[in-house]
Amino acid sequence: MELIDGKKVASDIKLEIADEVEKIKQNGGKIPHLAAVLVGHDGASETYVANKIKACELVGVKSTLIRFEDTVSQDELLDKVEELNQHNDIDGFIVQLPLPDHISEQRVIEAIDPKKDVDGFHPVNVGRMVIGLPAFISATPAGILELMKRYNIDPSAKNCVIIGRSNIVGRPLSILLSQKREQGNATVTVCHTRTKNLKEVCTKADIIIVALGSPEFLQADMVKEGAVVIDVGTSRVKSDKTKSGWKLKGDVNFEEVAPKCSFITPVPGGVGPMTIVSLLRNTLLAAGKKIYN
Amino acid sequence: MELIDGKKVASDIKLEIADEVEKIKQNGGKIPHLAAVLVGHDGASETYVANKIKACELVGVKSTLIRFEDTVSQDELLDKVEELNQHNDIDGFIVQLPLPDHISEQRVIEAIDPKKDVDGFHPVNVGRMVIGLPAFISATPAGILELMKRYNIDPSAKNCVIIGRSNIVGRPLSILLSQKREQGNATVTVCHTRTKNLKEVCTKADIIIVALGSPEFLQADMVKEGAVVIDVGTSRVKSDKTKSGWKLKGDVNFEEVAPKCSFITPVPGGVGPMTIVSLLRNTLLAAGKKIYN
Repeated sequence: MELIDGKKVASDIKLEIADEVEKIKQNGGKIPHLAAVLVGHDGASETYVANKIKACELVGVKSTLIRFEDTVSQDELLDKVEELNQHNDIDGFIVQLPLPDHISEQRVIEAIDPKKDVDGFHPVNVGRMVIGLPAFISATPAGILELMKRYNIDPSAKNCVIIGRSNIVGRPLSILLSQKREQGNATVTVCHTRTKNLKEVCTKADIIIVALGSPEFLQADMVKEGAVVIDVGTSRVKSDKTKSGWKLKGDVNFEEVAPKCSFITPVPGGVGPMTIVSLLRNTLLAAGKKIYN
Repeated sequence: MELIDGKKVASDIKLEIADEVEKIKQNGGKIPHLAAVLVGHDGASETYVANKIKACELVGVKSTLIRFEDTVSQDELLDKVEELNQHNDIDGFIVQLPLPDHISEQRVIEAIDPKKDVDGFHPVNVGRMVIGLPAFISATPAGILELMKRYNIDPSAKNCVIIGRSNIVGRPLSILLSQKREQGNATVTVCHTRTKNLKEVCTKADIIIVALGSPEFLQADMVKEGAVVIDVGTSRVKSDKTKSGWKLKGDVNFEEVAPKCSFITPVPGGVGPMTIVSLLRNTLLAAGKKIYN
């Protein structure tokens, strides 16, 4: 069993990105610039955005944080999105989700210029990805494909089971993995809450990707010997073994499943660290006009 | 075994649509109006477009046929698309594919206003469909879902295998069937040329949808007893039994497979007739501003 070290891969890629940014600077190019919009003071969102800004600093990407109180109106937020769409120096930006209930997340996402939508949530980017056109791919699917690539896990002709059909992980990943492309050509089955014979489906899988948010959902008897297991879940569960009183749990019963696997991602330190790297990568693509001209 | 009579269902639905159009007229509403752009004189395209126009006439939908020689330049075609986008009376339009080699189909598709894209090929409609937002669904997937609905075939919790990953059939169908929606919630596996254990995968399926364009690809030993089989293939093969010298063949070895099925679509007369109905339905949705306001 080999542990997929997302933390190490992410830190390697950050060095690669830092090199690319350094080269842009040396060639007198414009420094890539990411903006992040944060509404309110949700603890998790604060942490995510802070980590994104920190990662930008680390690799030399310029960043701007724009804060609103959670009393901001939808129109004010949409005005800011439009301002960022027009902003000459900002190459890409994200609006950290979730947003307060009185604001339509979908309205905000659709207001973002697809050319600056480095989260890849805009319908234009989703549609282009599905069709096979250049598109910003959302962070978690892109991170998982990159992790697999770095560990020489080729999904081509493999049976791949994805548990979870969310718009930001399961769905796009299922499409990408089954397309005729590098890190594609897998035979992909999407499972979800309504799947009846999940155990039977999973035991046939060469690669299992679990993205449910249900701690320790995947048990050893659902995994065949030698399978690759990618754990996207990150749930906070109470723990009396940590100072904070809680710890992160994945969707996989790691202790029992890991011995059966050829490769497995831990939680934390597996898929998680890759998401910020995907965002940085998309920011560079946006700055270089590599997706849209 | 019950034969799914697409011809009959399509003709029933045309009557329903004719009723709807009649009601619009009686209420003094604007008559729905579809335009079709046909480039060149490809035999199959001529037939498809003629059938679409004929179907419009039958149900009382206004139609306009716009013809170009295959020497038309891309810019001329894009100008026409823009004109149709702006045209006040035309609710929706299609550009019949394929286009001549010197014209980028993708450029033309992306030039169509998504609000008038009744073929559902624009990335915005594809993306919205994937996300679960209201969208124009392309004709073949929509027709198949409607056929299944009319025969009370509920895919929920069923194992559904789709053979073929094209952007206009296999891919959108795989997404729609596995979404949390009416005629959804299936456990869907997408198979393709790179799938290794196709026979094994197919024999587990409650529903098999074949969209490869490979005559008689699906054989009896790939189908479990009682399965539903939907045949999307339409290949012209030579025949000494018809006057024309050729006949249409599906992707299913019908004679051998049919006896094992609970339901099966024939070719011709199965999925084929439903596609025009889907187009008419989308035209009404466009005219009624049911997808976009």
